[in-house]
Amino acid sequence: MKKLAAGIDIGGTNILLGLVNEKGEITERTSWKTTSFTLPEDWVISACSFIQEKLSHYPDVTFIGVGIGAPNGNVHSGSIEHAPNMPWKGIVPLASMFENNLSCKAVLTNDANAAALGEMLFGAAKNCRHFLYITLGTGLGSGIVVDGKLVYGHDGFAGEIGHVILFPDGRPCGCGRKGCVETYCSATAIKTTYAEIRQKNALPAIPDADAKYIYQRAINGEKEAKQAFQQTGEWLGLVLANSVAYTSPEKIILFGGLTQAGDLLMNPVKQSFEKNLLQNYKNKVAITCSSLPENDAALLGAASLVLQS
Amino acid sequence: MKKLAAGIDIGGTNILLGLVNEKGEITERTSWKTTSFTLPEDWVISACSFIQEKLSHYPDVTFIGVGIGAPNGNVHSGSIEHAPNMPWKGIVPLASMFENNLSCKAVLTNDANAAALGEMLFGAAKNCRHFLYITLGTGLGSGIVVDGKLVYGHDGFAGEIGHVILFPDGRPCGCGRKGCVETYCSATAIKTTYAEIRQKNALPAIPDADAKYIYQRAINGEKEAKQAFQQTGEWLGLVLANSVAYTSPEKIILFGGLTQAGDLLMNPVKQSFEKNLLQNYKNKVAITCSSLPENDAALLGAASLVLQS
Repeated sequence: MKKLAAGIDIGGTNILLGLVNEKGEITERTSWKTTSFTLPEDWVISACSFIQEKLSHYPDVTFIGVGIGAPNGNVHSGSIEHAPNMPWKGIVPLASMFENNLSCKAVLTNDANAAALGEMLFGAAKNCRHFLYITLGTGLGSGIVVDGKLVYGHDGFAGEIGHVILFPDGRPCGCGRKGCVETYCSATAIKTTYAEIRQKNALPAIPDADAKYIYQRAINGEKEAKQAFQQTGEWLGLVLANSVAYTSPEKIILFGGLTQAGDLLMNPVKQSFEKNLLQNYKNKVAITCSSLPENDAALLGAASLVLQS
Repeated sequence: MKKLAAGIDIGGTNILLGLVNEKGEITERTSWKTTSFTLPEDWVISACSFIQEKLSHYPDVTFIGVGIGAPNGNVHSGSIEHAPNMPWKGIVPLASMFENNLSCKAVLTNDANAAALGEMLFGAAKNCRHFLYITLGTGLGSGIVVDGKLVYGHDGFAGEIGHVILFPDGRPCGCGRKGCVETYCSATAIKTTYAEIRQKNALPAIPDADAKYIYQRAINGEKEAKQAFQQTGEWLGLVLANSVAYTSPEKIILFGGLTQAGDLLMNPVKQSFEKNLLQNYKNKVAITCSSLPENDAALLGAASLVLQS
């Protein structure tokens, strides 16, 4: 009998839900704005209704459960715990909410962990046993794979490279501390970097300049926009070189909107990476972009949390 | 039949060798100055002679092989590879040298990895499945244990926290780069820190002041010596907090001469650690010192490389 799982990718901006089969094909999908739901309970009801309605069209299929990737997701408790970029505060036990509503298995983990798992099963990390997975979005998420397994750590919260402190007393971070990596290396961070460069060069501020806009200006030859990508790439290259010293991965896979800037970002990332690597690691670690469709890695990975077991 | 293994702990200054039984008891031991041997081959001959001579006193015992902990030790190749603080340069295939000389099994790994293994089998990390092991000596070594296993990574070189870049363009490091953690947090580093503080306060330099001497002056109430430990502890606390974000350990175990400074080092380490931890990890991670005799952790761990298999 064929199997389907629900994969859910929860981000600070959007929530994606899909029904996924064992080949990694998404047969049904929907999405919501995260901020539309003040209470997570309300969203869970909408999500369960969607799943049940769609499953009624697949009478010959076994539904094996719900996999969820979410910021600050704790695989041990099945909860989102104190996610700084989420409208839902405190501890949100999403896995048990789905289990209660649908009487099925539900597994929840960090959104970047889920994406890393998707990449390992269906994407650029196939057959790779040691890799880092970095998502460059609103923040910087990460999943660490050692010997073919996601590293969860003692409390389920391993892999928070975005909250490594890069510059002590640096930029304020959503987590309440200062100088975290994600305040320098993310789609949000490049806006700050661009604004700082323009200010330094006595140019007027562009309040709505987001990563896409900065990219367009860089492509059109604007020096400050190019510098913003150069500087972001240099910081990210340093962070990745430092990260290699922990788990010595074979590959680093970058994912998320910011990677669409291509060479504009990747050239300085790779230069800074090789420059900052310890001799032992030089010329051994490949940096590549995700090979999965932009929005599907986390969703496929989330579904894999239940599909693989 | 009883078993014995040879455990060897190679450092930049000393080499320790012991015969170790299955209870973790060292029944025979010797040591050398590392710099006494320009060629590693000469030392291997001395080491093999010692092992063979001592084994002749144990006719009823099975010798199961040689375990070696060494700086930049690569478990996959059994070689020391480009160790910055060693007199032996390039690639030194020690495991195969012992295999050839003694016709036995030989396993080599990073010295800090070996010490971590010793601590897991016989010391402060017993029954602990997720921990970081930090050695504070000439440099800063580290072993990372995830789910009860040492992390070796793709190429066998995982766990080089001492060569994470803490301050870009900072202090020159033996590895050829600048700003590495071990240039700020190690027995060598505190000498530089102390000298810098004295210089800043317009005090004369004390050329031979080592960590022990600085400790004595701090105990005697000297402000600059106390500041050197305070500053070293603050840096180390930050590094450890950042490291938790990778593998989310239950414990961090500190080892090495510098830990004998006790509260003078540990108080600022713990304060800085909790201050710099991401909310998710706060009050969850214990920092303790090794419970093994100072010089034996790496030797016992090295022996464990063959004893446990």
